[in-house]
Amino acid sequence: METIMVINGPNLNRLGKREPDIYGRETLSDLHERLIKFAEARGYKADCRQSNHEGDIIDWIHEAEGRSSGVILNPGAFTHYSYAIRDAIVSISVPVIEVHLSNVHARESFRHTSVTAPVTKGQIVGLGVIGYELAMLALLEGEKK
Amino acid sequence: METIMVINGPNLNRLGKREPDIYGRETLSDLHERLIKFAEARGYKADCRQSNHEGDIIDWIHEAEGRSSGVILNPGAFTHYSYAIRDAIVSISVPVIEVHLSNVHARESFRHTSVTAPVTKGQIVGLGVIGYELAMLALLEGEKK
Amino acid sequence: METIMVINGPNLNRLGKREPDIYGRETLSDLHERLIKFAEARGYKADCRQSNHEGDIIDWIHEAEGRSSGVILNPGAFTHYSYAIRDAIVSISVPVIEVHLSNVHARESFRHTSVTAPVTKGQIVGLGVIGYELAMLALLEGEKK
Amino acid sequence: METIMVINGPNLNRLGKREPDIYGRETLSDLHERLIKFAEARGYKADCRQSNHEGDIIDWIHEAEGRSSGVILNPGAFTHYSYAIRDAIVSISVPVIEVHLSNVHARESFRHTSVTAPVTKGQIVGLGVIGYELAMLALLEGEKK
Amino acid sequence: METIMVINGPNLNRLGKREPDIYGRETLSDLHERLIKFAEARGYKADCRQSNHEGDIIDWIHEAEGRSSGVILNPGAFTHYSYAIRDAIVSISVPVIEVHLSNVHARESFRHTSVTAPVTKGQIVGLGVIGYELAMLALLEGEKK
Amino acid sequence: METIMVINGPNLNRLGKREPDIYGRETLSDLHERLIKFAEARGYKADCRQSNHEGDIIDWIHEAEGRSSGVILNPGAFTHYSYAIRDAIVSISVPVIEVHLSNVHARESFRHTSVTAPVTKGQIVGLGVIGYELAMLALLEGEKK
Amino acid sequence: METIMVINGPNLNRLGKREPDIYGRETLSDLHERLIKFAEARGYKADCRQSNHEGDIIDWIHEAEGRSSGVILNPGAFTHYSYAIRDAIVSISVPVIEVHLSNVHARESFRHTSVTAPVTKGQIVGLGVIGYELAMLALLEGEKK
Amino acid sequence: METIMVINGPNLNRLGKREPDIYGRETLSDLHERLIKFAEARGYKADCRQSNHEGDIIDWIHEAEGRSSGVILNPGAFTHYSYAIRDAIVSISVPVIEVHLSNVHARESFRHTSVTAPVTKGQIVGLGVIGYELAMLALLEGEKK
Amino acid sequence: METIMVINGPNLNRLGKREPDIYGRETLSDLHERLIKFAEARGYKADCRQSNHEGDIIDWIHEAEGRSSGVILNPGAFTHYSYAIRDAIVSISVPVIEVHLSNVHARESFRHTSVTAPVTKGQIVGLGVIGYELAMLALLEGEKK
Amino acid sequence: METIMVINGPNLNRLGKREPDIYGRETLSDLHERLIKFAEARGYKADCRQSNHEGDIIDWIHEAEGRSSGVILNPGAFTHYSYAIRDAIVSISVPVIEVHLSNVHARESFRHTSVTAPVTKGQIVGLGVIGYELAMLALLEGEKK
Amino acid sequence: METIMVINGPNLNRLGKREPDIYGRETLSDLHERLIKFAEARGYKADCRQSNHEGDIIDWIHEAEGRSSGVILNPGAFTHYSYAIRDAIVSISVPVIEVHLSNVHARESFRHTSVTAPVTKGQIVGLGVIGYELAMLALLEGEKK
Amino acid sequence: METIMVINGPNLNRLGKREPDIYGRETLSDLHERLIKFAEARGYKADCRQSNHEGDIIDWIHEAEGRSSGVILNPGAFTHYSYAIRDAIVSISVPVIEVHLSNVHARESFRHTSVTAPVTKGQIVGLGVIGYELAMLALLEGEKK
Repeated sequence: METIMVINGPNLNRLGKREPDIYGRETLSDLHERLIKFAEARGYKADCRQSNHEGDIIDWIHEAEGRSSGVILNPGAFTHYSYAIRDAIVSISVPVIEVHLSNVHARESFRHTSVTAPVTKGQIVGLGVIGYELAMLALLEGEKK
Repeated sequence: METIMVINGPNLNRLGKREPDIYGRETLSDLHERLIKFAEARGYKADCRQSNHEGDIIDWIHEAEGRSSGVILNPGAFTHYSYAIRDAIVSISVPVIEVHLSNVHARESFRHTSVTAPVTKGQIVGLGVIGYELAMLALLEGEKK
Repeated sequence: METIMVINGPNLNRLGKREPDIYGRETLSDLHERLIKFAEARGYKADCRQSNHEGDIIDWIHEAEGRSSGVILNPGAFTHYSYAIRDAIVSISVPVIEVHLSNVHARESFRHTSVTAPVTKGQIVGLGVIGYELAMLALLEGEKK
Repeated sequence: METIMVINGPNLNRLGKREPDIYGRETLSDLHERLIKFAEARGYKADCRQSNHEGDIIDWIHEAEGRSSGVILNPGAFTHYSYAIRDAIVSISVPVIEVHLSNVHARESFRHTSVTAPVTKGQIVGLGVIGYELAMLALLEGEKK
Repeated sequence: METIMVINGPNLNRLGKREPDIYGRETLSDLHERLIKFAEARGYKADCRQSNHEGDIIDWIHEAEGRSSGVILNPGAFTHYSYAIRDAIVSISVPVIEVHLSNVHARESFRHTSVTAPVTKGQIVGLGVIGYELAMLALLEGEKK
Repeated sequence: METIMVINGPNLNRLGKREPDIYGRETLSDLHERLIKFAEARGYKADCRQSNHEGDIIDWIHEAEGRSSGVILNPGAFTHYSYAIRDAIVSISVPVIEVHLSNVHARESFRHTSVTAPVTKGQIVGLGVIGYELAMLALLEGEKK
Repeated sequence: METIMVINGPNLNRLGKREPDIYGRETLSDLHERLIKFAEARGYKADCRQSNHEGDIIDWIHEAEGRSSGVILNPGAFTHYSYAIRDAIVSISVPVIEVHLSNVHARESFRHTSVTAPVTKGQIVGLGVIGYELAMLALLEGEKK
Repeated sequence: METIMVINGPNLNRLGKREPDIYGRETLSDLHERLIKFAEARGYKADCRQSNHEGDIIDWIHEAEGRSSGVILNPGAFTHYSYAIRDAIVSISVPVIEVHLSNVHARESFRHTSVTAPVTKGQIVGLGVIGYELAMLALLEGEKK
Repeated sequence: METIMVINGPNLNRLGKREPDIYGRETLSDLHERLIKFAEARGYKADCRQSNHEGDIIDWIHEAEGRSSGVILNPGAFTHYSYAIRDAIVSISVPVIEVHLSNVHARESFRHTSVTAPVTKGQIVGLGVIGYELAMLALLEGEKK
Repeated sequence: METIMVINGPNLNRLGKREPDIYGRETLSDLHERLIKFAEARGYKADCRQSNHEGDIIDWIHEAEGRSSGVILNPGAFTHYSYAIRDAIVSISVPVIEVHLSNVHARESFRHTSVTAPVTKGQIVGLGVIGYELAMLALLEGEKK
Repeated sequence: METIMVINGPNLNRLGKREPDIYGRETLSDLHERLIKFAEARGYKADCRQSNHEGDIIDWIHEAEGRSSGVILNPGAFTHYSYAIRDAIVSISVPVIEVHLSNVHARESFRHTSVTAPVTKGQIVGLGVIGYELAMLALLEGEKK
Repeated sequence: METIMVINGPNLNRLGKREPDIYGRETLSDLHERLIKFAEARGYKADCRQSNHEGDIIDWIHEAEGRSSGVILNPGAFTHYSYAIRDAIVSISVPVIEVHLSNVHARESFRHTSVTAPVTKGQIVGLGVIGYELAMLALLEGEKK
């Protein structure tokens, strides 16, 4: 059974606990469960992980090569400065879709522009937790071809 | 029957005719037909339009207010400078999702950053024509709530 | 009878309908009526127009030459990027006063600075609909000299 | 009888003496007299002052609180860097309208953008000495409401 | 008979009427006539148009594909911000030469750099109306090869 | 008895009167009294002053040399542009600690970065009126050595 | 007994070993011991930690929520780029005070401005190891209220 | 017989030897011969030179004053930084037309903008070796007037 | 007897007391005495003043008009931001020469560039107290013509 | 026997697996073996490590102090933003030479400039795996002195 | 007899021939003669040179070391970009004073700031040909000490 | 016998004479002798040159094509602005390695970034005169392949 790796970056373990008006009340385990079921319903396995350590995320992206048919990555704040994660994405051939829960363009204008977006296949931004499901649909669509 | 307005901006009438390796060989009418069917299958009507005139796009966005339950907007090059379209989006209460066929972050780094993204509900970028379908799913999901 | 041309740019047709706490509840036709009366009371004719099309605004500015004794222009969002409207103002000899309903300096710091202001005679900013009347007084005062 | 405070900033004591093609030949006392009469004709008192000292202007703005029903401020060159005057304006509840005799946008592009404009109620720019009168009308109009 | 399309952008309908010391006294119809004769003398047809509407210029550039053997484009002020015209040029295979009557590098340093120049075949700048004729020669020369 | 000079810059005379949710309801004289007692309890004299005039603050900093064993300076808005106060601090050998009541980094990102901070001994920012007391402790600690 | 968490970031384990003229000869364990005693004398417990790993610091900040009544954070070099630590601070409700031993404004002008300062309660900068004690006093003061 | 001076700057002696897909296979002597014949056919003399030394080019521009009726200058890389050549052009009254073989706007966006273009009469860019001939026509046209 | 006004700006009253390795040990009164004698020896009167108040310097520059045949101005730190002093210089017809004791270009690269220099007749920088004497010679030389 | 520590940063574990046309087909263990032999042949021990975790690299740099006679560091993407690694290099007295396999200046112009290079002894860039050997020679040469 | 070397940079051989309203009608040889006499009257020899070649100026600066007691340098346009001349000034111990005939700060704001000024002893700007004489006086004054 | 060309740029003729603490006491002829011997020991000829003239360096780089098997270039200050040398490197097929004696990244952060580095094969920076020898080894290594 093919696997989609779902990687959530720093502070996403606080999901449902901080700023619920922006991020909703669903926790990270709620989200992971939902994605596991969503994938199973389509004959896939969702391998869901979270870390606050940039190095873990790089290790996992490397690990996806040859093991997963796609990566859904919410790099959290690393999207703004982690050239190392950027290089990790470039170093594998598996497609990566970047997801952000809230509309970062509206809320984070003071930050550097995204450094990971240019090397991902695409991005889904601002659509809440459903964004992960849409990303999964897009990866499965690509699989069919 | 509820309507989703789909607005394609400048040069998208050339879809399938220019740079097929980036944008594919599907033409704009192919895309519009596909979206009409996709909407109908879910009990909605897709109202698809295209213009190279910024003013038309502003007029149509105003028109969506009170007539459509959502707007899918591919602003093309206007995404980089049309503060007038930005203001039009702000002036209505209907949710707008921005779609780009290719990964603009990878290809257009030399341009100004997006001026429309901050005022849309969210963006789907780089996933090809399927991006429009995902946007429609996201709008319908919002409808259910 | 001499004419003052009043040109309202993009999204001002939504006046009274969007963000009433910023722009008030008076609609564009209310405003136009008010200005027509205000002009008549001083022996002038107010020729009031609105368009979301940059090209229309350029055409109208050209038209003012030789037909109006002054132009009151609210360029809306075009103030931030329309070098073409800027050139249109330079191409005529009729004085142009720029009006903004709200204090754009307070609300739009993220945007480019105004490109039209440097080639107008002056600007009246942030004083609401009364700003148009003050602009008319200033143009009539100039007439008297 | 209610009072409008008129504050003229640095170098405006040279009015009528320097660059008459830009600023006209009317001196500062001419201007002050004219405004006093203009106010009296409308049942108000104009309290007109000028200083080259930033601290005086701050002191006077504080003084206006509870004593004047509006402030007309031509900050002169301070408009470009006096964050202290900006803070003074924020620290009072009386409305402040900023006036510039000439079109600063046309002549001073090399300078920093205005730091006072964002915290004033509005600005009247480039309309010569009549700009002060229009500002007074706008303040009186506000009074009526 | 082969056709060269000549597209003049915003405010060029004011040619000969504004700033004659910069642009000369020849009007737009004078220029169009001159170019039609110049083309005919070389066995070509000049199809000359002007619009203040960005959308018209995009439509015409699309129309040139498969109908003209070259486009001479004076984008006027659009050269500074119209990424939509830029994309239109990229979307056709017909060579486009950009022409400016005056030396924009000398007069418009405050503006953004040209966004259309990078996607045209070449530019002829500052040589007055003869610049259009030289552009035509360059296109015909290309034809011979 | 040794003296600590406390200098409050522009608009701090409005303390307790403006934006009480940010600055609290304690007035400047309350603050000065509190600091005088705090110093006396530790065997020192607090010499507290306030001015809206940059020149006064420079004069007082010079005066501190040879008379005070430390300066606590809240430069208010001058922190953003007064290179003259910066030079005054450099011109004396008495240690200066900069204090800000609110977290300026959170509220004033649009301004220039601080020009005085680099030449002070240290800064205490965002801790309210207690920040002045902590600064006094830090100066007295330095004294003991 | 309530706890104050003290988090020292990268390279602070080298304290007392590098650049003693800037940072003094006191080592990190000296500092931690001193703070434990200082807290105990006031009826609190100081929980002191150090790591060179950004992820550890994020984990610890999360851990402070619900366990500590305040955090004293010296983010070291992370202050200049760790948007992930910034987000961690935002994700908890415990007050965080940022401390720097030396006057970073004087020594690190070449770096990016601080990204953590805007989301902390306040900062104490340049006052050496006593800065940690002052931060503790400020947190305890807050507790009393 | 009147003379047109043709000055080719650094690395143009490598013409036909480097990057032939961009610059063609014609060598510099081919080009010079072609221009000499082109000028002779129109009753003029072309005085063609090349140097990699900025000082030579300045000397030659000075020499053109009073000896040539026009200068065609391809400044090569000097166009991006030689303010000294810029000043040389300003110091003579002979018209100078700047020519670039390839479309520098497309290929060299990373460089500084041109420093010589603003002080030349005009520029012909991206049209290959024919650009020199068109420049000669433009100079001769000017002569006729 | 004609007068040269010498205006020394903020912190120059500390001359000879701060950083003697940069500014020498001569005090401000030494300097003023020296200049008075230097002027007298050439049949002129030196009117020497110093203030830390920007407003005083503006008042004095105005005063020079019609009373002095030249102004020697060391604006100290005001050179970096006082647009008000800049405007004062513009508002008089008496020539002003700017003097700096030390080579500000070497020591203050982090600051804004000079805002006063562009409107003065010339500058003498980095030559110590003799710079004032050279400035006086330059003004007297101008007088002779 | 003296030791040279070789530290390879993020994604270098993918060496030989990604972009072989840029980085060659030699894997990281091949490289480490080669360096161990190269060092042994000169009487030294090469201690080779790799991590994707910034914190590990900081820990190892600290560890080198007092244990290695030199460090060869390829910081990978961390070179662009890790001020923490920069501080780690500053905190030790052992010389560090920075190595990059490919010519980063040619390939990564869009990134921030290097933050580690200024605090290393020197850099060897773009010479492939031989760059590590040359770095070792340079460190041994330094040892001899 | 001691020598002062006077070096004039590019385009100064055109002195008296170009823009006489800015630079006067005195030619370069007039200036050189005047300086030779001025030096002789004070017991010195003026060694005056001019070149349009950056390399010549560097060679001459090197030559001054050990042969001249001072250098007066007008670097012309090289002041804006010649880091090589900057390095040449640093490489000698003879004092260099930079002279500009016109007020470059007023006329060349569009250019890069001066790169040579920071490494010279001082600058004399905008005082015309007398500036060279004042520079000579300053160098001789230094000699006396 | 194959040749390696060694080109030293501006001010390197001052080697051993200026700033010996940075550049050592070895002169340029010492360096050239050392390199000639180093090359001979490996069966190559070192052709060593130096010039302060940018044009000479361009001429020599052209000359290397077809005569040398590699170029070692220390462009000195030209590295910061000579786009002409950059183009010369691009115009030949011989590999060029850039060498800097000192760590320019540490000392010259105020300058523009290197313009030559991106088009060279690689760079060796900060390792003193041994850097030239390492560059030679790298070129010979390349030769072997």
